Amino acid sequence: MRKYLAEFFGTFMLVFLGTGAVVVAKGDTLTIGLAFGLAITVSAYAFGGISGGHFNPAVTTAMLINRRIEAMDALWYIVSQILGAIVASAAVRSFVSALGLSTSALGQTDFSKINSGMAFFVEALVTFLFLMVILNVTSAEHGNGDFAGITIGVTLAFLIIVALNLTGGSLNPARSIGPAIFAGGTALSHLWVYILAPEVGAILAAYCARVMGSED
Amino acid sequence: MRKYLAEFFGTFMLVFLGTGAVVVAKGDTLTIGLAFGLAITVSAYAFGGISGGHFNPAVTTAMLINRRIEAMDALWYIVSQILGAIVASAAVRSFVSALGLSTSALGQTDFSKINSGMAFFVEALVTFLFLMVILNVTSAEHGNGDFAGITIGVTLAFLIIVALNLTGGSLNPARSIGPAIFAGGTALSHLWVYILAPEVGAILAAYCARVMGSED
Amino acid sequence: MRKYLAEFFGTFMLVFLGTGAVVVAKGDTLTIGLAFGLAITVSAYAFGGISGGHFNPAVTTAMLINRRIEAMDALWYIVSQILGAIVASAAVRSFVSALGLSTSALGQTDFSKINSGMAFFVEALVTFLFLMVILNVTSAEHGNGDFAGITIGVTLAFLIIVALNLTGGSLNPARSIGPAIFAGGTALSHLWVYILAPEVGAILAAYCARVMGSED
Amino acid sequence: MRKYLAEFFGTFMLVFLGTGAVVVAKGDTLTIGLAFGLAITVSAYAFGGISGGHFNPAVTTAMLINRRIEAMDALWYIVSQILGAIVASAAVRSFVSALGLSTSALGQTDFSKINSGMAFFVEALVTFLFLMVILNVTSAEHGNGDFAGITIGVTLAFLIIVALNLTGGSLNPARSIGPAIFAGGTALSHLWVYILAPEVGAILAAYCARVMGSED
Repeated sequence: MRKYLAEFFGTFMLVFLGTGAVVVAKGDTLTIGLAFGLAITVSAYAFGGISGGHFNPAVTTAMLINRRIEAMDALWYIVSQILGAIVASAAVRSFVSALGLSTSALGQTDFSKINSGMAFFVEALVTFLFLMVILNVTSAEHGNGDFAGITIGVTLAFLIIVALNLTGGSLNPARSIGPAIFAGGTALSHLWVYILAPEVGAILAAYCARVMGSED
Repeated sequence: MRKYLAEFFGTFMLVFLGTGAVVVAKGDTLTIGLAFGLAITVSAYAFGGISGGHFNPAVTTAMLINRRIEAMDALWYIVSQILGAIVASAAVRSFVSALGLSTSALGQTDFSKINSGMAFFVEALVTFLFLMVILNVTSAEHGNGDFAGITIGVTLAFLIIVALNLTGGSLNPARSIGPAIFAGGTALSHLWVYILAPEVGAILAAYCARVMGSED
Repeated sequence: MRKYLAEFFGTFMLVFLGTGAVVVAKGDTLTIGLAFGLAITVSAYAFGGISGGHFNPAVTTAMLINRRIEAMDALWYIVSQILGAIVASAAVRSFVSALGLSTSALGQTDFSKINSGMAFFVEALVTFLFLMVILNVTSAEHGNGDFAGITIGVTLAFLIIVALNLTGGSLNPARSIGPAIFAGGTALSHLWVYILAPEVGAILAAYCARVMGSED
Repeated sequence: MRKYLAEFFGTFMLVFLGTGAVVVAKGDTLTIGLAFGLAITVSAYAFGGISGGHFNPAVTTAMLINRRIEAMDALWYIVSQILGAIVASAAVRSFVSALGLSTSALGQTDFSKINSGMAFFVEALVTFLFLMVILNVTSAEHGNGDFAGITIGVTLAFLIIVALNLTGGSLNPARSIGPAIFAGGTALSHLWVYILAPEVGAILAAYCARVMGSED
């Protein structure tokens, strides 16, 4: 039970700090990237000792493929992550509403300048790179456990910064589901890209990281 | 005695670097968030070995509830924290005055766009999240002592960034008392929110963190 | 084989996150510097345990001179680094193209305000300083292995920030070759500066660091 | 000899990255603060293992008072620090000149909005706080050696950010001497403030830190 709560709180922190930086603080590119990324860093050090610190269904999928988690647990992790994201988006929505801002802008991920094929490619590629870093830095053989939290969070920050103008930079189905439920519109009709593409990137990374010895 | 001095200096650093970044440096959102947050990080590594590094009455309250500090000590910690904040605000006021700027803007926390109920909710929620991170990252059972200082400071930085446009982002009664004494006005009449709400959030977190095993 | 893949991925991350921050995110000076620098930090912690984490032909040259790598390995490291940079630039080019932006701006390094002699001096000097930090922080005798990844990445970030208005701040032949191939123009005709100058700086640092005991 | 070279290079990095961020990169407040501060962080991890990582005559003075260094060594440390700062300013001057910018703006420290008494107070106070952090975080009894480099550098960064609009934020006689020699004018006639005030702050901190047990 505790590990599901840990996944709930970690994913809550990601969506609360990240989308809060976008719509409540109206932060610049660096602030937004760091808010999402460092939310994972602090949650990894605070809650990672309980659950392993996935906070992302795509991460859980890769961990399942590489047998670092069991199937039943993986399912409950993903449920907890999605619930954490939804509750965080509800909180951010209440802030936006209290400020008298439009509740259709909740930090949801979407794309308008590129087509859905390109959006799929971008999300799959950056999630692939994200998981390559995660699986190698947490490798028992050649990783660096102490600095894994910083490494993973900083990687997410700058991958999001690159992807921001393309797809909004999700890399995480739960992070996209939370705000999309409240925002609706194209964020909801495009949601399939943000669910499938990160999973494809994560599955590819699970195999590629193994080639590099991440599971040795 | 040394531990009270440590609490004094740590809280001084928080208010000096944080409100100094606001009114003397006129920093942007990221600069302000990092100034407050990283003040706690550096004070935790420099002075935390002496006192445990609370620098915040709400943190001391949660530590008291979870029996990590004794009642008499907790009282003197809170007195030292409030004194540190007041002396820091006096220093910042002297800078603002020397620059010929208005001494009614001293980085005090206040709210104008939202009502006091919402302000109470925001401060209680972000302080709850702050303490959930603090109590879990310093947990003997599943925490990460080495990286606790970075984790706690970075968490504070981005929680403040989210709350900045709502309540100014206090999460700390001492941090709000210091500037309010010199600034007066609504910062003083609204002060009760910044004293009570963080305490409510901290008390709730003390119980919730226990459920997650922070005191095991 | 794994170590060549590690060098490929690390250099890919450098060029992808760095030039992506420039042309896709259009980040400010700090964002750009941190994107390049912290790409090295995260790659060092994730892939450095496999290859040693050079991600730069000039670094590999210095390591060869100070006998931390064998000649045949050094050659394949450099080939892998250049390939990683080229593939990353191809990815960034596809993003720029999808956004309808000019594909002649790919984050390539170039100089227009200074002459090639000054550009050579700047690149040689900052790469010399970069290698002095790398060789000393990884010294068995007086270095700091745990914090080497952060130290090296942060050093690169701020050296690039200083050099940005002068030469674009390369310090790395592979990082300059990748975008230059696709961008052409003066980025290609000036490429010799970005290949030779970092190597000169690295060779000088290899000898100077030895004087400071880096190889003791 | 090696330790004097280490002090030379560390102080060179401080002035090169810090004043370079000001006049070559024209960075914003956060960029400038971090450039100075993190220059100390990276130099501490790279060269601190050789010399102890002072990079500042005021730090060396405090270390001398608290018997962490011998008088003859302290003298040569200070000479090496001043030389490092001067050579760094010469390099920055050559960049500024190559860009066709005014060579009277070299990132020198100066004050125009406040009087010299206030400037003295500001520099003495922030240097006092800086040394309180340094002496406690490096304390054998209650410090944190591993994170000392990060703590000291981040503290410097945000103390400079607060002091920037008041005195330029020196906290270091060597850092002020370097650019003042080339810039002349009031930077030179006000130099006594930047030499004396940090020393006064450091001497006070040496005694105060002892009260907190830094030398136990």
